Amino acid sequence: MSPPKPINITIIGAGTIGLSFAALHISHASRTGSTLYVTIHDTRPDIREHILKTLPTYIPCNVSKSSSDRPFGYEVKVDDSVSVQRLFINDDLESAVEDADIVQEQGPENAEFKTALWPDVEKYCPPNALLWSSTSGIPVSTQCLAMKDPSRLLVVHPYNPPHIMPLLEIVPSPATDPKVIERTLEYWKDKDRTPLVLRKETTGFVANRLAYALLREAIYLVQEGVASVKDIDDLMTSSMGPRWAVAGIFKSYHAGGGAGGLEGFFKNIGGTVQACWDDIGTVNVGQGWEEDIFRQTKEAYGVVDTKERDRKTRAVLDAVKLL
Amino acid sequence: MSPPKPINITIIGAGTIGLSFAALHISHASRTGSTLYVTIHDTRPDIREHILKTLPTYIPCNVSKSSSDRPFGYEVKVDDSVSVQRLFINDDLESAVEDADIVQEQGPENAEFKTALWPDVEKYCPPNALLWSSTSGIPVSTQCLAMKDPSRLLVVHPYNPPHIMPLLEIVPSPATDPKVIERTLEYWKDKDRTPLVLRKETTGFVANRLAYALLREAIYLVQEGVASVKDIDDLMTSSMGPRWAVAGIFKSYHAGGGAGGLEGFFKNIGGTVQACWDDIGTVNVGQGWEEDIFRQTKEAYGVVDTKERDRKTRAVLDAVKLL
Repeated sequence: MSPPKPINITIIGAGTIGLSFAALHISHASRTGSTLYVTIHDTRPDIREHILKTLPTYIPCNVSKSSSDRPFGYEVKVDDSVSVQRLFINDDLESAVEDADIVQEQGPENAEFKTALWPDVEKYCPPNALLWSSTSGIPVSTQCLAMKDPSRLLVVHPYNPPHIMPLLEIVPSPATDPKVIERTLEYWKDKDRTPLVLRKETTGFVANRLAYALLREAIYLVQEGVASVKDIDDLMTSSMGPRWAVAGIFKSYHAGGGAGGLEGFFKNIGGTVQACWDDIGTVNVGQGWEEDIFRQTKEAYGVVDTKERDRKTRAVLDAVKLL
Repeated sequence: MSPPKPINITIIGAGTIGLSFAALHISHASRTGSTLYVTIHDTRPDIREHILKTLPTYIPCNVSKSSSDRPFGYEVKVDDSVSVQRLFINDDLESAVEDADIVQEQGPENAEFKTALWPDVEKYCPPNALLWSSTSGIPVSTQCLAMKDPSRLLVVHPYNPPHIMPLLEIVPSPATDPKVIERTLEYWKDKDRTPLVLRKETTGFVANRLAYALLREAIYLVQEGVASVKDIDDLMTSSMGPRWAVAGIFKSYHAGGGAGGLEGFFKNIGGTVQACWDDIGTVNVGQGWEEDIFRQTKEAYGVVDTKERDRKTRAVLDAVKLL
């Protein structure tokens, strides 16, 4: 039996999300003992230092100069894994994607950049490569406009940071080939992620829309002097946060409605729900609430310790899984 | 040194929330070895069976007939605690509150009931007793209308179920005596709860307003065919739930903005936030989305196992605390 073929993943754009995805792919491959080549294509001049410094803060790993024949190669050994993964830096797009099984894009969040990028990727990469954009807002329908074959592209939108957070919003355009969606889901299967295929392209996708709806009301309540920034955060970590880590909003209210379920919930307190909706805040960006809320947030938190946040988030995810 | 004076708490209305509060008080007293008398005032005919059946599902305890001279008394022994707490059922309001240090109301959620109740409680209870309503929507300003001394009353609104969820929204009216707020906070101090004083009475208080804002958008997205009920729930448990169990929404986006903090976050993606706000759903109760959403929820979950939910929620809260 021959060993399984190594997987080639090309990461275009290695900011927080790109490197976090690289960490995720590397840690999965290490866990299963399979072989992975991650190629990083990024134009920042300090990309090597950036990777060497950041990657080990995402996953416990040792990064060393590779003996490989490819240029700018590193070997990445995760924790006690026996397998060693390979990481390359390549600033030439053509050779960066020419062997790719997956091309994952996290470039600048503007439509021009992405629309111009994909025809080149399409030209240079193997015909079967999966093409994923991590965009949080630019739909595939826009990104694929200049492609020869728009059926190849879809959005795989993570919840930051992807090496911790299981959610992946899979957002095809109407033109995306269902087989591309299937193969994308197939890749994520058994990788301890939650890939969810959205049925329509929609502004901001789903996770951010839900979060921003709550954010808007939170800003409104601070602005109205009902609660401080810190109060609202403390309130969330002591109520809806832990609840929604265990059960989503529909399941939660379905349980809250007793024997009548969600219908019983609305029968009991639909009046209060509607009263809150009638009174909902409709603040907008740039309306003047910013100064006070930015100041309160800065005073409350200074610089957030994201390592502590990530450690705790892993523990929360484990707690839900284990019981 | 004489032992500390026992605390008398009278629970008016022993539905889910009333009994859950009783469980919370009893488990705290048991943990500290102090003595607590909980008096339950409820008119339901099966109140004794209800308590005997439900209380041990909230906290691991043994409930037995009391040798006390008070009628309908029970002894409640929590797990391995050495102390035994006392529970009484009393359907006469006057004697139910006459020795109370705290009267905690969870009666029917209508203003007439509550407004009529408090003058009686006020007349029969000791002058120093703390008067708390667990209402989720009827403000103290309304509830106190017929009281002689409206300065005594405030809302202590839990996030269900209170024996698990740390949040308590403390909502005074403008007439509430600051000393009553202080004594209420004093009671909850060292009891592993998160009591937050709201600065203004507002429709639905804060936690539910935030949750309902997200619920509205969730209903809208299901109605628009973007995602199913189950998809939205899975999305929440794999992203914002675990995140908000660890850090509230302002702290989260403050971290997400990197060195620029929350201000940096809005500089980077304020445009997307506003685009989502411009497109936000404004569904209302009774607008016809109910049938499909109730059906999807029922099909996805049937009857929710709240014991499993509560076990996992405790584990999540512990995970955040321990690290």
